[in-house]
Amino acid sequence: MTTFDGLWAEIADVGRHRGTGGYRRYAWDDADLTLREWFTGAAGARGLDVERDRNGNLWAWWLPAGWSGDPEGAVVTGSHLDSVPDGGAFDGPLGVVSSFAAVDALRAEGFVPHRPIGVVCFGDEEGARFGVACVGSQLSTGALDPDRARALHGADGRTLAEVLGRAGVDPAGLGRDDGLGSRVGTFVELHVEQGRALDRLDRPVAVASSIWPHGRWRLRFTGEANHAGATLLADRHDPMLPCAATIGAARARATQHGAVATVGKLAVTPNGANAIASEVVAVLDARAPSEAVLGALTADLFADAAAHARAEGTEVEVVAESLSPVVAFPDGPRERLRAVLGDVPVLPTAAGHDAGVLATEVPTAMLFVRNPTGVSHSPAEHAERDDCLAGVEALTAVLRDGASS
Amino acid sequence: MTTFDGLWAEIADVGRHRGTGGYRRYAWDDADLTLREWFTGAAGARGLDVERDRNGNLWAWWLPAGWSGDPEGAVVTGSHLDSVPDGGAFDGPLGVVSSFAAVDALRAEGFVPHRPIGVVCFGDEEGARFGVACVGSQLSTGALDPDRARALHGADGRTLAEVLGRAGVDPAGLGRDDGLGSRVGTFVELHVEQGRALDRLDRPVAVASSIWPHGRWRLRFTGEANHAGATLLADRHDPMLPCAATIGAARARATQHGAVATVGKLAVTPNGANAIASEVVAVLDARAPSEAVLGALTADLFADAAAHARAEGTEVEVVAESLSPVVAFPDGPRERLRAVLGDVPVLPTAAGHDAGVLATEVPTAMLFVRNPTGVSHSPAEHAERDDCLAGVEALTAVLRDGASS
Repeated sequence: MTTFDGLWAEIADVGRHRGTGGYRRYAWDDADLTLREWFTGAAGARGLDVERDRNGNLWAWWLPAGWSGDPEGAVVTGSHLDSVPDGGAFDGPLGVVSSFAAVDALRAEGFVPHRPIGVVCFGDEEGARFGVACVGSQLSTGALDPDRARALHGADGRTLAEVLGRAGVDPAGLGRDDGLGSRVGTFVELHVEQGRALDRLDRPVAVASSIWPHGRWRLRFTGEANHAGATLLADRHDPMLPCAATIGAARARATQHGAVATVGKLAVTPNGANAIASEVVAVLDARAPSEAVLGALTADLFADAAAHARAEGTEVEVVAESLSPVVAFPDGPRERLRAVLGDVPVLPTAAGHDAGVLATEVPTAMLFVRNPTGVSHSPAEHAERDDCLAGVEALTAVLRDGASS
Repeated sequence: MTTFDGLWAEIADVGRHRGTGGYRRYAWDDADLTLREWFTGAAGARGLDVERDRNGNLWAWWLPAGWSGDPEGAVVTGSHLDSVPDGGAFDGPLGVVSSFAAVDALRAEGFVPHRPIGVVCFGDEEGARFGVACVGSQLSTGALDPDRARALHGADGRTLAEVLGRAGVDPAGLGRDDGLGSRVGTFVELHVEQGRALDRLDRPVAVASSIWPHGRWRLRFTGEANHAGATLLADRHDPMLPCAATIGAARARATQHGAVATVGKLAVTPNGANAIASEVVAVLDARAPSEAVLGALTADLFADAAAHARAEGTEVEVVAESLSPVVAFPDGPRERLRAVLGDVPVLPTAAGHDAGVLATEVPTAMLFVRNPTGVSHSPAEHAERDDCLAGVEALTAVLRDGASS
């Protein structure tokens, strides 16, 4: 058994739903807090000092012998530990577990770092609870306004400020981490691939070229609640109909523009079997190869939604929840990884990551590990053990290279 | 202030949601139990003996002087007190309050009944909690199998058996009420109209001719959860798409067949913004002028659903939750009402009622009270006070006539 296997087993049951087999690890909930304690424990077991930054992100440091003061110019790796509803085991935790396993591999070979090595766990990457993704990293780079973050609330009505306060993080302290750029010399995130490109190429590991621009919008269709039996069709103002038509239009517009668009989340009011709905809220997730294409897709689609709403005597309101620009990872770190790892494939991705957020502030790269089915955000998400170990080996080489001078 | 106004005010706040202004009175929940206590208290204040039958329905009896033994051949009126989610104030309670107000009017005029007068409150008419409508009346007529009823469960996972047990109703005792036919000579339910026919006719009160056949089906679309960004459109098996297409098809098929069809309730799994859904369950409510038309509509629609599901590499399973045949109220009671009330309009309705269930066992009629907007199953449901008082007056006349010999 490798150190990877041991670490993996330690968290396998945390937040796992017995019925679905999927993970429910939502930012700052019991499962997430358990995983954060596990992170601190795993770091401590390796003699790494753990710091929690002002935004609740955890940093574990392996400092060169004789280093005094704060880390500077470090090579940092890591990922996140939270999940989407009924997510898979790999999305996030694979990066964290592989980071500790790479540290262990370096220790085992007697490696002596000449610059700090960091392992980071970013808070609330998926946004499953509060609706905004990459909250921890976005706060640290200044991309997310702390006032907006504090006011975010989940389905239970609690604000992020309240939830952070209960977890011992001072919500008044949220904000840009001015030391980030000097502390982190390079950031490398290892992540399970969320697609089948590596499977098609028959390769275990790749490096990332770019992340597609990505947005999330709430489409709120409003009509008039009424009796599902006794109301004549002509008298209805049923918001379910334009919402349904817009879901179909999202697929058609995505196909037309060579992009992806998904409605995976709906809220119906009052959601009664024998009542015409008064309101249906659909959350649209759309991503495209460029910001121009994403803009064209959404402009077309929101016009579709407005037309469908009008046709049923209903209304629609569109609210942007988030919009992430395209991330082109810089050539330098990527080419350094390719020099270390040999001629590994280079892939774009439409999935968002903390690495994409950090890329605005520090030299950043990503490693992907093969996902044989491409399935992610699902209990069926999988990576073969041999591919995970190949990922650890690649990450070990990257850290060795980054910290050797 | 009339006795009607007083009774109406007593329950105005029970189960009312401050945010929506609608009522959330679900079978056997706190609001419903409060209303059942109110019913018992209102009956007691009038010297009426209250019985709870084996299915939890409440019966309040005004027996002729010197009557001994069980009621027989009674003229019974009443309705229900539960609501749909965010329902209106009138659907159900108007019938119960008007019943007590009619008893008060008869007492005030010194009326002496020659046969028993009953006021009934049927349990769980709307089916908002357990998915099946008219549970109390259907159990009593034998239309609902007690084993099936006991196993019904709500969103909180509790079975009806468990919920009844907590409310002090022995779930083992559920079943057909063999004494119903002899106890009830005539049943007359007063109900707010759920449509605008009386408004168009400019009349306050009508009698019912028939209830359209009505069915409820669960359409369970299943696909594959996956990442909303990184999954190519061609690799998706998104059940949201065939569900959306089927919602549109339901309206088209209803229009084609001269019927109504509504999807007002959806459940999405996992319901995450950045995850393709693995499952979407839509509840279809469909009603038509005849059983043949209803059958043709649903056959067409379920074929549509299957085709839409196949086109996306997904599956759909259709489960019938309930199917109520057409109810043609008998001529006798209706003509008796019209003789008593004068030439009131006669209307069909597409809304289901306990009266429709009882019509299979006992002579049954219905009175409708004008709804100026036609809106029902909504906080905006309304009836003018003068029309409510006209309803009480009509019901008083009907009870006087029914119990005078």
